[in-house]
Amino acid sequence: MGRLVLLLLLAFLMPGLAIPVPPALKALSNLHLSTSFTSRPSVVMKYSIHYIEQKIDHFGFKNDKTFNQRYLIADQHWRKEGGSILFYTGNEGDIIWFCNNTGFMWDVAEELKAMLVFAEHRYYGQSLPFGADSFRDSRHLNFLTSEQALADFAELIKHLKRTIPGAENQPVIALGGSYGGMLAAWFRMKYPHIVVGALAASAPIWQFEDIVPCGVFMKIVTTDFKRSGPNCSESIQSSWDAINRLTRNGTGMDWLSEALHLCTPLKNAQDVQHLKDWISETWVNLAMVDYPYESNFLQPLPAWPIKVVCQYLKNPNLSDKKLLQNIFQALNVYYNYSGQARCLNMSETSTSSLGSLGWSYQACTEIVMPFCTNGIDDMFEPQPWDLKTFSDECFKQWGVKPRPSWITSMYGGKNISSHTNIIFRGGPSSRSPSQQCL
Amino acid sequence: MGRLVLLLLLAFLMPGLAIPVPPALKALSNLHLSTSFTSRPSVVMKYSIHYIEQKIDHFGFKNDKTFNQRYLIADQHWRKEGGSILFYTGNEGDIIWFCNNTGFMWDVAEELKAMLVFAEHRYYGQSLPFGADSFRDSRHLNFLTSEQALADFAELIKHLKRTIPGAENQPVIALGGSYGGMLAAWFRMKYPHIVVGALAASAPIWQFEDIVPCGVFMKIVTTDFKRSGPNCSESIQSSWDAINRLTRNGTGMDWLSEALHLCTPLKNAQDVQHLKDWISETWVNLAMVDYPYESNFLQPLPAWPIKVVCQYLKNPNLSDKKLLQNIFQALNVYYNYSGQARCLNMSETSTSSLGSLGWSYQACTEIVMPFCTNGIDDMFEPQPWDLKTFSDECFKQWGVKPRPSWITSMYGGKNISSHTNIIFRGGPSSRSPSQQCL
Repeated sequence: MGRLVLLLLLAFLMPGLAIPVPPALKALSNLHLSTSFTSRPSVVMKYSIHYIEQKIDHFGFKNDKTFNQRYLIADQHWRKEGGSILFYTGNEGDIIWFCNNTGFMWDVAEELKAMLVFAEHRYYGQSLPFGADSFRDSRHLNFLTSEQALADFAELIKHLKRTIPGAENQPVIALGGSYGGMLAAWFRMKYPHIVVGALAASAPIWQFEDIVPCGVFMKIVTTDFKRSGPNCSESIQSSWDAINRLTRNGTGMDWLSEALHLCTPLKNAQDVQHLKDWISETWVNLAMVDYPYESNFLQPLPAWPIKVVCQYLKNPNLSDKKLLQNIFQALNVYYNYSGQARCLNMSETSTSSLGSLGWSYQACTEIVMPFCTNGIDDMFEPQPWDLKTFSDECFKQWGVKPRPSWITSMYGGKNISSHTNIIFRGGPSSRSPSQQCL
Repeated sequence: MGRLVLLLLLAFLMPGLAIPVPPALKALSNLHLSTSFTSRPSVVMKYSIHYIEQKIDHFGFKNDKTFNQRYLIADQHWRKEGGSILFYTGNEGDIIWFCNNTGFMWDVAEELKAMLVFAEHRYYGQSLPFGADSFRDSRHLNFLTSEQALADFAELIKHLKRTIPGAENQPVIALGGSYGGMLAAWFRMKYPHIVVGALAASAPIWQFEDIVPCGVFMKIVTTDFKRSGPNCSESIQSSWDAINRLTRNGTGMDWLSEALHLCTPLKNAQDVQHLKDWISETWVNLAMVDYPYESNFLQPLPAWPIKVVCQYLKNPNLSDKKLLQNIFQALNVYYNYSGQARCLNMSETSTSSLGSLGWSYQACTEIVMPFCTNGIDDMFEPQPWDLKTFSDECFKQWGVKPRPSWITSMYGGKNISSHTNIIFRGGPSSRSPSQQCL
């Protein structure tokens, strides 16, 4: 059971998962509520790619090595007179993917005469401090922390102001979503001399220690399903036992593999657990990209995808097999909206632009976010939060131990009232899972 | 010449020297201006000694080792009801020595119902992360930074609030002088959720890069001598050439060694440079402890010691030998006020409670404070600020390179207007060298 907990929680902590992941598009685009119920109008996203040499270790002097951090600049609307700089505090993925999915910055660039800067987070995309060796061991991963990332951002902004004529005295505003939203907020908290303000979208800065109950996030995900169709969450709730009953023997596993069109058939109890984790992740992801318009962030999806999913999940009292055939239809909305998939692949839940190795390490060190389910307030199988097991698994995987209280020591937890000019913004409606964590 | 520059500047950067060093007593005691023109009344300084286990590296996870940080608590005046916590952000020395020399905290403890906490800075006093090996090489010194020290302070305060019943909701105020004053200010800037305010005494937070001209500090020291007696600074100004002329040959060196009562006679040009550096340091130290009452901080001294010194330095136009005999009398005020010294020892300028090894490393990495003299606006031999030479010497000594712009990136330089509740306080009068740097 301990291990299962971890699998589920690690899943949560995988990019695109439990960290109310990069809903930059979601949270930011929807600031334009009146127009955003259809797909975004096409904006020409033209940017140039640059690199800046950064110290691998900003907080020590023994290691004098450097790496190239990638960043993008879009300056077609920038003006030296009265202009500004919008600075995207890159999170756990390829910066070009974030750049293409952060419509809000492009939308407001002209009005603000703004230069858009998208900074890649170290250890993601092309910004790898030790190249291919970056994830090799805890020695190479040692410089993957939020503090180092913020220091990179600070040095980058200083560099831009020093080298771009006209930029020196312009205000810089930090923007980011999800983990990037935390970074935007923390950046303003720690470097107020460098950014005049921050827009932190869907930033779960209180999802640490016991600041919020560990069950809150999954409860909100459940609420999204509850509100999207009658009996929808109840159907999902019933599905776990149905899976457990059906997979007691090989015949049942074969049947289920077929019914769910799995690319790789289930063979043992471990596969069954993996299946349940994968399905859980899918529901969580849907909650995070439940946009009111067609979109393609984690996956290509219809407008209000959870409503579409719930059309298949209206009756929780069906036979196990009928129920799971409906679950397949529901999963198919997420994994096969395009109709191209020949089978469902349990090893994929979202875009490969997110950096899962780096994120797994960060979740095992600083970004320790307790998640749990109890199967009563939420529609998932009960999984308590178990720091000890989590810690042991982290040590096994990366040779490091989580330090769950550190983020609160560093960034203040709920005691952030002395800071100014930080806008925390959730999704467009009460449907947003990350919004309500705050 | 390059090397000489370094020697002088390194001297400046030695504890008790150019960093307007720990004038905690000076700046803090004098807040009670009306009573402080005599020696402090005797307060019973009763404290208990404690240790807290701290991570050696707060900013990485590969190194999981810990060390014991020492701290002192004085709680005789502390009240659970309506009380507060005054937190001394320890600087570059033994915390017990600072504790005994920070009268202000003891003076206000009763009125504020305050618990006094004195936290020792890592790598000083007994708080050595690697014991006797702490200064062995750049690998062991890698965790000696202001950021690590502030993180220690944050964790210590969290620990005290968690473990001392009644402390949890009390306000904590950071206090410190000189480098410790910088730390107090920076602590409030970076951890406003942990300290509600800071009293930063004689904290030269702008003595970095080109925020203030590099000559400012020595110019202010010179002003102190100018104002303390007619022809005083001019006499000192004349003394350098007199030394240079006298020490052109061995006979002159012997004469001068005798005249200055040096414990170790001068033998070569290097010794002569060392002598001039040592004398310069002495004048700087005098400016930093020019208290209006008898004191014993860096050395036992009379009230207004510079006035006493200047009584011996009224005529700059004497013969070289006469002038230097007077310089001896002046030095003797600083080194032999007690009358116990049989000779003057060039290897000592102040108390051994300050940690010179650690400070030399910090000055070579983060705390890079440019100092210079031109012999025109000040009374010293001209010494330009030469970062290249300084850097080379640092690399030779410690295997590290200074990063002069880092402190400004981290703490904002002059752009600190978004912070609140920080009192920057200089010395009691315009005589304070560190005050005017700000």
